[in-house]
Amino acid sequence: MSELGEEVREGQLAWRGLRVLMAIPGSSLRVFAKRLGPGQELLSSLQEFVEEKQLKAPFIITCVGSVTKATLRLANATADNTNQVIRLQERFEIVSLVGTLNPEAHLHICLADKDGRTIGGHVLGDLEVFTTAEVILGEADELCFTREMDSRTGFPELVIQKRLEQI
Amino acid sequence: MSELGEEVREGQLAWRGLRVLMAIPGSSLRVFAKRLGPGQELLSSLQEFVEEKQLKAPFIITCVGSVTKATLRLANATADNTNQVIRLQERFEIVSLVGTLNPEAHLHICLADKDGRTIGGHVLGDLEVFTTAEVILGEADELCFTREMDSRTGFPELVIQKRLEQI
Amino acid sequence: MSELGEEVREGQLAWRGLRVLMAIPGSSLRVFAKRLGPGQELLSSLQEFVEEKQLKAPFIITCVGSVTKATLRLANATADNTNQVIRLQERFEIVSLVGTLNPEAHLHICLADKDGRTIGGHVLGDLEVFTTAEVILGEADELCFTREMDSRTGFPELVIQKRLEQI
Repeated sequence: MSELGEEVREGQLAWRGLRVLMAIPGSSLRVFAKRLGPGQELLSSLQEFVEEKQLKAPFIITCVGSVTKATLRLANATADNTNQVIRLQERFEIVSLVGTLNPEAHLHICLADKDGRTIGGHVLGDLEVFTTAEVILGEADELCFTREMDSRTGFPELVIQKRLEQI
Repeated sequence: MSELGEEVREGQLAWRGLRVLMAIPGSSLRVFAKRLGPGQELLSSLQEFVEEKQLKAPFIITCVGSVTKATLRLANATADNTNQVIRLQERFEIVSLVGTLNPEAHLHICLADKDGRTIGGHVLGDLEVFTTAEVILGEADELCFTREMDSRTGFPELVIQKRLEQI
Repeated sequence: MSELGEEVREGQLAWRGLRVLMAIPGSSLRVFAKRLGPGQELLSSLQEFVEEKQLKAPFIITCVGSVTKATLRLANATADNTNQVIRLQERFEIVSLVGTLNPEAHLHICLADKDGRTIGGHVLGDLEVFTTAEVILGEADELCFTREMDSRTGFPELVIQKRLEQI
């Protein structure tokens, strides 16, 4: 085999290397950064972003910012009793935002008030930005998130699948 | 050099490109998504998942869900006094879950109750899922987490190393 | 075309494959893990780490640990009234740390006290580690974070740009 042949085999190894990377467990990841400004609503803005970028398995990595409002569903809510809701209208620092975003958002938030006291729950909306919200989203680009009714909970719950199309 | 030779050099560049990617600082990342259902225990389920997938440097990226119980160690605990523990038995929304998972889990959690009030601490267990827990785990696939006793703290603390084997 | 030629084309495909990966939306990611020990200050340690590694788009993925102090700015602070500050000096578990780190840090934290009660706000400093702080940082390696004064808020706010240099 000529030296040229050796070089060609390196090219082959590279290509096979990419295929091997795709076969290992879990998924590779892309990240997206977004800054929202005063008056923008966090939940709907994130949902629009997911739609615009056509993300299939998006989730929150981190979020820092402040809001002037929030509507949260509290821990005692069930599928039969979803009216355990609190509507807040004061300034809060976002100290945690967790969850997944596709095809419906499932986000929980923790907010700190003017005394540092915190309140948390399931995000229903009205997260009006006060000064800023910086969000880093992840997209598991080998996975696809859908939701299916789970008769045990009465809610459509997350279903995780491998994507059929590969890069 | 022929045109063919140029093509061969492109193959070489690709292969060297992969090697360069491995030499840059930090680690590449794989992500795993998992949904737990009613009655499953979050801590032990995550530990089983880490063992099953043989993850070496796993950590929580995000977690959203609800629990009916939790046993937490509180902030005044030390290596000499680890019995600062609270056992909770009511419905909570998970509003934050942070930490690393290998070889022992080191997780802290923040839970919101039926009034939105939050309570937090070090996860000891009993995190029985109410409706769902959606978890995104990261695995730093060029790193390896171990724990070694730190005489300053009395606890086995995280040690971060580069993995010897590369992809 | 000879068999050799086919192999050469595979090498080309690999190289083009890398270029295609770079053209898809969002950014690839590198992760960094860091453990801080007793007495180290979390905010300045993270800022030093970002400077040392020359990170351009760094953010918190997860952080678990404990502190003996914290200075936080609370939710009612504005650009005209930034003295809404609380200085805490007791043991806390870190139950959430969120935000971005370049070129100035913008971090919010949620801390749980000896009874599990939580307090949160904007990190100003004094986060003296009690036993440990384990931090996983992400670096969006195709993005660059800067800050520019936003006249609507009076604060320098996050600006997200594509990096000019590619790998």
